Amino acid sequence: MRARTCLPFLLPLLCVLNVSAQNTGAGATPRHSLMPVPASVQFKDGRLSVGKSFNIAARGHTDARLRATVERFLRRLEGRTVMELPRGLRTDATDAGAASLVIEAAGPGRDVPSVEEDESYTLEVNDRQATLKAPTTVGVLRGLETFLQLLDGDREGFYVPAVSINDRPRFPWRGLMLDVARHYQPLEVLKRNLDAMAAVKLNVLHWHLTEDQGFRIESKKFPKLHQLGSDGQFYTQEQAREVIAYAAARGIRVVPEFDMPGHATAWLVGHPELGSAPGPYTIERGAGIFEPALDPTREEVYKFLDGFLGEMAALFPDSYMHIGGDENEGKQWNANPKIQAFMKEKGIKDNHALQSYFNRRVLAILKKHGKTMMGWDEILQPDLPNEVVIHSWRGTAALAEAARRGYKGVLSNGYYIDLIFPTHQHYGTDPVPADSALTPEEAARVLGGEATMWSEWVTPETIDSRIWPRTAAIAERLWSPREVRDVEDMYRRLAVMSVRLEELGLTHEKNQAMLLRRLAGGRDTAPLQTLVSVVEPVKEYRRYQQRPQTMLSPLTGLIDAARPDSDAARRFASQVDALLSDAPRFEAHAMPLRNTLTQWRNAGPELEVLIDRSPGLHEARPLAKDLAELGTTGLEALSYLSRGVAPPAEWRDARLAALDAAAKPKAALEFPVTPAIRQLVIAAYEQPRLGRLTAAEWKSQVKQLSAPAAKPPGR
Amino acid sequence: MRARTCLPFLLPLLCVLNVSAQNTGAGATPRHSLMPVPASVQFKDGRLSVGKSFNIAARGHTDARLRATVERFLRRLEGRTVMELPRGLRTDATDAGAASLVIEAAGPGRDVPSVEEDESYTLEVNDRQATLKAPTTVGVLRGLETFLQLLDGDREGFYVPAVSINDRPRFPWRGLMLDVARHYQPLEVLKRNLDAMAAVKLNVLHWHLTEDQGFRIESKKFPKLHQLGSDGQFYTQEQAREVIAYAAARGIRVVPEFDMPGHATAWLVGHPELGSAPGPYTIERGAGIFEPALDPTREEVYKFLDGFLGEMAALFPDSYMHIGGDENEGKQWNANPKIQAFMKEKGIKDNHALQSYFNRRVLAILKKHGKTMMGWDEILQPDLPNEVVIHSWRGTAALAEAARRGYKGVLSNGYYIDLIFPTHQHYGTDPVPADSALTPEEAARVLGGEATMWSEWVTPETIDSRIWPRTAAIAERLWSPREVRDVEDMYRRLAVMSVRLEELGLTHEKNQAMLLRRLAGGRDTAPLQTLVSVVEPVKEYRRYQQRPQTMLSPLTGLIDAARPDSDAARRFASQVDALLSDAPRFEAHAMPLRNTLTQWRNAGPELEVLIDRSPGLHEARPLAKDLAELGTTGLEALSYLSRGVAPPAEWRDARLAALDAAAKPKAALEFPVTPAIRQLVIAAYEQPRLGRLTAAEWKSQVKQLSAPAAKPPGR
Repeated sequence: MRARTCLPFLLPLLCVLNVSAQNTGAGATPRHSLMPVPASVQFKDGRLSVGKSFNIAARGHTDARLRATVERFLRRLEGRTVMELPRGLRTDATDAGAASLVIEAAGPGRDVPSVEEDESYTLEVNDRQATLKAPTTVGVLRGLETFLQLLDGDREGFYVPAVSINDRPRFPWRGLMLDVARHYQPLEVLKRNLDAMAAVKLNVLHWHLTEDQGFRIESKKFPKLHQLGSDGQFYTQEQAREVIAYAAARGIRVVPEFDMPGHATAWLVGHPELGSAPGPYTIERGAGIFEPALDPTREEVYKFLDGFLGEMAALFPDSYMHIGGDENEGKQWNANPKIQAFMKEKGIKDNHALQSYFNRRVLAILKKHGKTMMGWDEILQPDLPNEVVIHSWRGTAALAEAARRGYKGVLSNGYYIDLIFPTHQHYGTDPVPADSALTPEEAARVLGGEATMWSEWVTPETIDSRIWPRTAAIAERLWSPREVRDVEDMYRRLAVMSVRLEELGLTHEKNQAMLLRRLAGGRDTAPLQTLVSVVEPVKEYRRYQQRPQTMLSPLTGLIDAARPDSDAARRFASQVDALLSDAPRFEAHAMPLRNTLTQWRNAGPELEVLIDRSPGLHEARPLAKDLAELGTTGLEALSYLSRGVAPPAEWRDARLAALDAAAKPKAALEFPVTPAIRQLVIAAYEQPRLGRLTAAEWKSQVKQLSAPAAKPPGR
Repeated sequence: MRARTCLPFLLPLLCVLNVSAQNTGAGATPRHSLMPVPASVQFKDGRLSVGKSFNIAARGHTDARLRATVERFLRRLEGRTVMELPRGLRTDATDAGAASLVIEAAGPGRDVPSVEEDESYTLEVNDRQATLKAPTTVGVLRGLETFLQLLDGDREGFYVPAVSINDRPRFPWRGLMLDVARHYQPLEVLKRNLDAMAAVKLNVLHWHLTEDQGFRIESKKFPKLHQLGSDGQFYTQEQAREVIAYAAARGIRVVPEFDMPGHATAWLVGHPELGSAPGPYTIERGAGIFEPALDPTREEVYKFLDGFLGEMAALFPDSYMHIGGDENEGKQWNANPKIQAFMKEKGIKDNHALQSYFNRRVLAILKKHGKTMMGWDEILQPDLPNEVVIHSWRGTAALAEAARRGYKGVLSNGYYIDLIFPTHQHYGTDPVPADSALTPEEAARVLGGEATMWSEWVTPETIDSRIWPRTAAIAERLWSPREVRDVEDMYRRLAVMSVRLEELGLTHEKNQAMLLRRLAGGRDTAPLQTLVSVVEPVKEYRRYQQRPQTMLSPLTGLIDAARPDSDAARRFASQVDALLSDAPRFEAHAMPLRNTLTQWRNAGPELEVLIDRSPGLHEARPLAKDLAELGTTGLEALSYLSRGVAPPAEWRDARLAALDAAAKPKAALEFPVTPAIRQLVIAAYEQPRLGRLTAAEWKSQVKQLSAPAAKPPGR
């Protein structure tokens, strides 16, 4: 489900940004890099050293999943420590006494991963031993990830600090939706992302398998679905089972989605007889909302769905099945006289009611096959039975309303990672915010949330960089106590997490340099790296508006190399903030700011030379000019500030006008640093007038005057 | 086959390094970046622009392989140009007239890729159209790679220069041997390397499937082989067929190797009854040569081999099969009284003769199954039938001797890429050197060569960086005319090729940064990047001697991040060379040299801080100190030179002693820049005495005095 209007998650964000204190449950101990932060964590004196004899024993339950998990854990520990460690899990009682890490699982957990799984664990580490206890193997998995995150080192070697952790998730449904339909993603992409999900304690892969642009799962009953609807890019049932097993081994459920009655073009290529218009149909290559929809008035359609969903119900063991249900605009229904006659005959007053009729029919089919139905917001019509789970793209208010009416729900509004919003914005979205008016019973119906990776503009080369590391912060929102919400600390831990995720084969960090090298045709990419570090793709749905492409277009441009939530821009803004707080001396961070700005100014001409020879970069020409100008403007402002001299109004006006021009996206990329440069310009100009204010007053004045909408004062 | 003595390929190298002129067959046109250089290439005036309407038509033969190749070609072209291009291959005559690129294949080529395949093609490009003609689809494949390498760009956009190319390989056997036994490599590693092989026109994947350390292919007849011999890491027969088909689609043969009678421990884990000692056996975890060998005196062994090799002969369609045959030291044979008795009875005088007996028996089995036998040098015993192909690890002389005696042969001596030699060393090795005394008929028996990737010290994370880009230079040696041997130009083109290979998913460029980030635990890796850019893993078999590990050890250390043939070191040495040629002013490149040396000096202390917190880097501590000292020494020498002042003898002695210490490997890494720094020190000291010499004399004197073995003069 695509939320095509501006998402209303700015409000919670503002609260979060103003919170600076954080209760992590930790004692007065050094900062940790745990993500998600455990429900309760108490650091102690001492440390367990991790050396070549580090070994693991089990006391109590063991099974194949536990053993495999321990093996993977040891390989990652070896990778980080560059030490060969003893293999395997010891299982006799005398071993446990001497082991470095003792695991006590009470039982295996559910046969099929379930939303009711107990994922809790406790981890006690002292000088001699670490003890991980959990009621299920899944709890052990979660605890082992925490243990790996605790690993630290110094001159003495590797160690884990002494600590007492008592952890359990806040929400039982913590998902990542992968749209593999608009751009197919091979098995290795799914696997490495499942590994990453486990690393941040996510537990649901919502597998969006069908779309206008592709039908990605093999149907043995109706093979024309995947044969004609996928360009040959689909998962065999054997591969689907492989993914399900891989996920289950990591305590992750797989909830498949078969989007209907809209978003159905790819179904209709092989089966036009199911459509509401006669066809023929071809696989959709564009982005947007399209008309093709299943015909809800024909019994053959339900017979087909009974066959197909029955086949899928047997393939996917999870007890939930997602039927989409979103964005059917009903144009084909309006245009079809038979459908109109059917509605008249049955007294179905409008398309919403017709879709409700369709949903009830599909619900009956799913119940027959033992599945709980889930669908996007639109399925919530007055007569919907409340055994159905609502997947909300409309927001927490809609979700709360559903909960009040007795529906279980999962939130995705606020977690649309394809929209390129900064991490703190997702982090500030809470499925049950502090000011929620829900009763505890109602609140319990809010099962959790899902980050949604819609795949119009991602390929196997770039998808990881759209999911990670931001999704780790969403995972924390869904696992950790509501009170864990210090944004600055989140960003600090996120940077560590981002690198840790690489050991799982993720490419979010390393592929940027590769994309730039290809664009530069093997030439030096240093100035390009400077540029790309301070631009971000435009937000929401503006990429397509500003730089239209199709599902067949190469996604190898500068916008594809650029990443959401620029670290360099955030660092720059915080340095500017510190500099302005240091009025009237303006010395704090002046040196690194000057270096950064000089680098931008110098990169401009170097980029011009590179761009001349690399036509794939021609669209970046205005960005190179902007970057140089941002550097020059910033350097001039810095110079005025450090000399305590105010520039003439003409300078300010010219610079602000140039900043307005630079703030306009080019090649669907924008500079998140322009507001900070604007602050420097305003501060330089306003020095004399603001000289007598306190630091806080001064900063607030500059911020106010720098707001992009503000007209220059006194004009 | 491991060549455990110093390889004798230094002599040809010296010739190559002294050749500076190069005949590429090109006209007086700008430098190209083709690799391998075509047999004949003539650039012309004009260019074919490559824009959004670029399209391809076929005139004459088409087939599924050709279509799939064109699709892959278009995806890569789109990736580089960031343009969506028309899909598919047009096939009617009117299309061909208007097409940007016309393909004329005369026929499909052989059903199974063969050493007799015709891979030739011609490519004519003018302002209006490119025409690619070839007798087979494989020739088209080769030509399309050349076309992609010709792609260039400027302010006007992308284009291919007008050119006339007539190309064919010098040798028909151009291979890469992958040892997937010591470290298993998943399918995706094989596939991306097959793509890279095709990009540099290699045509044989020699798949080294069995070893003491692992038995990697499923046997349905004898399942204990892979079940007990592989830790579960083996290729199913379905996967093997997938690899064979993937290779064939790229015009690449797959020659499997089942190493026997030695290197056989992993066979014997499941089948100890085949061994020359009673067993039991366990999978070998060490590196080296081991005793377990098949028992050549027992008929059951040949019955078993008949079954197994028959099964493999049906699985692998190539007409060659490699039986290894190397490094059997015969200790188990000596110790087994039954074997000794058998030898006495049959009049077999020694272990060589016994292995000959074994080889003749295996040869008969392979012939029965329709395969030509191939084996390492050792199999060449006096009574070997000359239908067998000799795979030479001993060198060109041994290969020539075999050719004279009527054997076909393939060279790998000189192409042992696991030994971390610099590229120019491999590039200088010619299977039939210019001074070869072979008659044309004998020379034709030298089929070509194979780069050998033995896998003791590589994982899926690092293997690409050991293969690429160096193997592209070996591919050129085997494809291009003998006269193409300008080392400097090779390095220039190799750098371009290295980046181009990344589009195929190879990780040789991008994984280094990832390995460093893991080692640094998420901290800033800038000083570590400086260090790693100027160190190389020690050569030959010294890694294991200096830093012993097993097949189970993590390969995530600094040595694994370091790459062979440091670009930075080569650039530094050439800048020092230019500086010394600029005597007595010493101004050429003084600025970049000073910057580089300053960076080294400053990185030292920064590294110390990083190392303190990253125990995985503790072994790098002496390297950090060395790096800082190399920087300081170089800066001081530069300063003496630029001032025209000679340092005191004490300075020189202290600095040379420090350089001697820095030249000693630490953590199995060494600084290839020490000789250049030594030259700077000597030059600084010798300034007054050498002042009256010519530039050439002066440089030669400094080089002579700087040779590491040389004692300081006059002591």
